[in-house]
Amino acid sequence: MRTIDWNDENETLIMVDQTLLPIDYRMIACDNIGSLCEAIQSLRVRGAPALGAAGGFGIALAASRSSVDSMETLLDELKAAGDTIKSTRPTAVNLAWGVDRVLDAARDAYDTDGIRKIVLQEAKAIADEDVELNKRLGAHGAALLNDGDTVLTHCNAGRMACVDWGTALGVIRSAVEMGKDISVIACETRPLNQGGRITAWELMQDKIPVTLITDSMSGHVMRQGLVDSVIVGADRITQDAVFNKIGTYTHSVMAKEHGVPFCVAAPVSTFDFERMEDEVEIELREGDELRFMAGKQIAPLDVQVYNPAFDATPMENVTAIITENGVFTPPFLLDEVRFLL
Amino acid sequence: MRTIDWNDENETLIMVDQTLLPIDYRMIACDNIGSLCEAIQSLRVRGAPALGAAGGFGIALAASRSSVDSMETLLDELKAAGDTIKSTRPTAVNLAWGVDRVLDAARDAYDTDGIRKIVLQEAKAIADEDVELNKRLGAHGAALLNDGDTVLTHCNAGRMACVDWGTALGVIRSAVEMGKDISVIACETRPLNQGGRITAWELMQDKIPVTLITDSMSGHVMRQGLVDSVIVGADRITQDAVFNKIGTYTHSVMAKEHGVPFCVAAPVSTFDFERMEDEVEIELREGDELRFMAGKQIAPLDVQVYNPAFDATPMENVTAIITENGVFTPPFLLDEVRFLL
Repeated sequence: MRTIDWNDENETLIMVDQTLLPIDYRMIACDNIGSLCEAIQSLRVRGAPALGAAGGFGIALAASRSSVDSMETLLDELKAAGDTIKSTRPTAVNLAWGVDRVLDAARDAYDTDGIRKIVLQEAKAIADEDVELNKRLGAHGAALLNDGDTVLTHCNAGRMACVDWGTALGVIRSAVEMGKDISVIACETRPLNQGGRITAWELMQDKIPVTLITDSMSGHVMRQGLVDSVIVGADRITQDAVFNKIGTYTHSVMAKEHGVPFCVAAPVSTFDFERMEDEVEIELREGDELRFMAGKQIAPLDVQVYNPAFDATPMENVTAIITENGVFTPPFLLDEVRFLL
Repeated sequence: MRTIDWNDENETLIMVDQTLLPIDYRMIACDNIGSLCEAIQSLRVRGAPALGAAGGFGIALAASRSSVDSMETLLDELKAAGDTIKSTRPTAVNLAWGVDRVLDAARDAYDTDGIRKIVLQEAKAIADEDVELNKRLGAHGAALLNDGDTVLTHCNAGRMACVDWGTALGVIRSAVEMGKDISVIACETRPLNQGGRITAWELMQDKIPVTLITDSMSGHVMRQGLVDSVIVGADRITQDAVFNKIGTYTHSVMAKEHGVPFCVAAPVSTFDFERMEDEVEIELREGDELRFMAGKQIAPLDVQVYNPAFDATPMENVTAIITENGVFTPPFLLDEVRFLL
């Protein structure tokens, strides 16, 4: 079952409600833009590739619900729907990318029925391509893993962050599919615990052995020789650094200290090689994410909190970047990488 | 107000109930051994030095509640009470140490009234000495801090782990008392969040500026140059390593990577120089500490969990050990240190 998909029978967008994991695995259906926007804002669907598909299917949903028969009016309606969807998470580049790709495709139609067909086709293509891309990425990465390896990962770069398969977890799934025996150490990933809530759950669903640890234990497990490689996802990759979930940098230093390969699994769409680390602003999130857990107070209500969503890992700590087009090893020759993207 | 103390008026042992922090600051009274044992087991009182005082006052409590007038019978009763108290946390060396020190003192008495007086005197002496010792330790450590410094700490090595003042936080308190402007970054310290629940609360009570972060952020804040030194407590110090709350080792590697001094604040009673790291077994705690938070499920119920309570930081990562007898800088000349202890 895909994380996000289209139901042809009743023309609705269906998705796993990730806020209920791991206690409940439930598919929800969005039958209008309002419910889709609520789902994105509440993080029922999250993860860059999954949001790209959500944006695309959102336009298809708007087209299927509109009864206008003027092409111009329909295109205007779809553009307005796209703006509404994009505004739910303005910094999510993939969400806007998915919306815009489908809107662009709509221009090739000759009538309103054509628009409705094309936008759904294009949205489905985004979803299919994401799965296909992750499988290619997974195959490239799986070649780096040995039978019997234990991989440490952080946050969730799995099926639930994508349409299916996953990036970091996709590499692990591909290795397991090749017959390799792989175990995973999942860092719980404070403050929102995507590792404990989602990664651990995903791997257990697939019967891939997983052990949950606190983020602070990564040094201890590596010092004991329990980790063969670290594989994480990425939110953005500049010329000099990998931006990923807060805590990733600490794991990269621990890997360097213990001679453990530190690998990043991300599609080439994550590359932002026009920028350097110091040109990227790191999102600061609400302090209440550390003051409360599952609705319960766990720190003084008025304590000052520093809560960056991401950190930057300098490229010298990165052993390899696994993409759908192959494995890159820093330092990059920029012109060479551009050619391959 | 001390974390643990004796109420002369009604001859009860009073203590802060630390399980209620930071939501509620409440003193509870133990008027018999049963309620004291419950308080120790439920972690209402915790921290090695505080448990030493709890053990000592426990014997005083047993003596005050006994009405026997035979010295031999009374000493037997106290020994039995001591065994009951020690069995609540068999690995807590300070708890047993406090019990035994007071039982030993009781042998100097000439009658049952003498026993009752002496055991209370000795228990109060343990508590007084702990405060005095922490103040001396604090003064030695404060000399290492500069005006304007930001100190990163892990877990709670503060007033709440001791009778008063604290070890790592005692150094900070002493520096502030000397007029230095010190800010603290407190790591929340998963899985039991003593940093978020207790350290942050303690420092806010004293109006010492504190910022709460997740444990995984320590690398990110050090890379940004926000940390001038790391100060942590210790549970045991062998010839080659410092045992402290899980996560400490990771912070020590981050400090080394960024050229930040990594200091350990602990009384000499923490030294166990007869042993090497590999002779010490690390306590493994229940997996539910990662599966639940404040009573709410936060990971799959049946996920495998690895939950060591402590880790070992090799001595080469330690810049200084701050004790009540002065500051030691590894590598130690063992004979020299033995002389100073």
